[in-house]
Amino acid sequence: MAHVIIEWSANLEEVLDRPGLMRLIAEDMRERSDGTFPVGGIRVRAYRADDYVIADGNGPDDAFVNIEVRMGVGRSEAFRKQYFDALFTRVRDFLADLFDQRPFALSLYVAEVEGWKHNSIHKRLKG
Amino acid sequence: MAHVIIEWSANLEEVLDRPGLMRLIAEDMRERSDGTFPVGGIRVRAYRADDYVIADGNGPDDAFVNIEVRMGVGRSEAFRKQYFDALFTRVRDFLADLFDQRPFALSLYVAEVEGWKHNSIHKRLKG
Amino acid sequence: MAHVIIEWSANLEEVLDRPGLMRLIAEDMRERSDGTFPVGGIRVRAYRADDYVIADGNGPDDAFVNIEVRMGVGRSEAFRKQYFDALFTRVRDFLADLFDQRPFALSLYVAEVEGWKHNSIHKRLKG
Repeated sequence: MAHVIIEWSANLEEVLDRPGLMRLIAEDMRERSDGTFPVGGIRVRAYRADDYVIADGNGPDDAFVNIEVRMGVGRSEAFRKQYFDALFTRVRDFLADLFDQRPFALSLYVAEVEGWKHNSIHKRLKG
Repeated sequence: MAHVIIEWSANLEEVLDRPGLMRLIAEDMRERSDGTFPVGGIRVRAYRADDYVIADGNGPDDAFVNIEVRMGVGRSEAFRKQYFDALFTRVRDFLADLFDQRPFALSLYVAEVEGWKHNSIHKRLKG
Repeated sequence: MAHVIIEWSANLEEVLDRPGLMRLIAEDMRERSDGTFPVGGIRVRAYRADDYVIADGNGPDDAFVNIEVRMGVGRSEAFRKQYFDALFTRVRDFLADLFDQRPFALSLYVAEVEGWKHNSIHKRLKG
């Protein structure tokens, strides 16, 4: 199970390829995690932040993308470091133009969560 | 104090009874927690996720509801397990049709938080 | 680095000065944290909650503002207590009218997070 919650400042509306970013993360979790993130449990979503103040509030082009991953407990620290180092690099490369074009802050946080779940998406995947 | 944050994928717009789901959770916290969640501190809200990629991205009907509870520290693990086991069952039953109708993922996470608060809703309740 | 995520119930649309609240928090982090929160890493945003159930669900004027701070690990507990005590007081004073006018719940939570980041806003600030 992996939840990925992306927030992006509204001033990126015209320049951020959100579907591409979400697909990149979902694909990376499917293909590079060796099953650590079962496909049926991947849920990536993106929310636009319409109201914000960044830094000193004086840079109208200042923008951010923040990515939060919440996953079940139990992955080793070694896996986490190796997997998310590479994911962050992929995301940073995907957004490289933004860093060149404007003041831009990208962040990725990972938290472990415990909880309850029930999921019939796995059934569709087994076809 | 209990904050409940619900996210739901936008393709549930026509089929998810959000007011009913929010009322069910708020009522359950009022009536079944023996005062662990003071009434005046209950704040349930629901956000629509318009942009998302679920699983392999190939199931247009794939949908999710994610529920996050944040409550003050100090409830025993026994209370948490017993209370949220039952809450999850109630929510799952409330949404049972969705599991039958489509690939659907339901999740519930609980986190303890520490912080600051000031609340005049308790005063209204005492009337 | 400091992320601040504000949620506010939609029934505050006409009475909550969101830009003022966001500016107050960002300014406080810049000016009163002795550099603990580097200016270029401050990202305050506010989201409107359109769907909610508060308390017993019977107070149409019941309203809330919830503020979540996420910051890097490593600040001392003494700093956290002193800094956020004062921040909460400033925010509560800023919103004092709301407590007088209606049932209103304000909360502030602080969490430490670990992650990855890349930020070209610092460069703009150095100008």
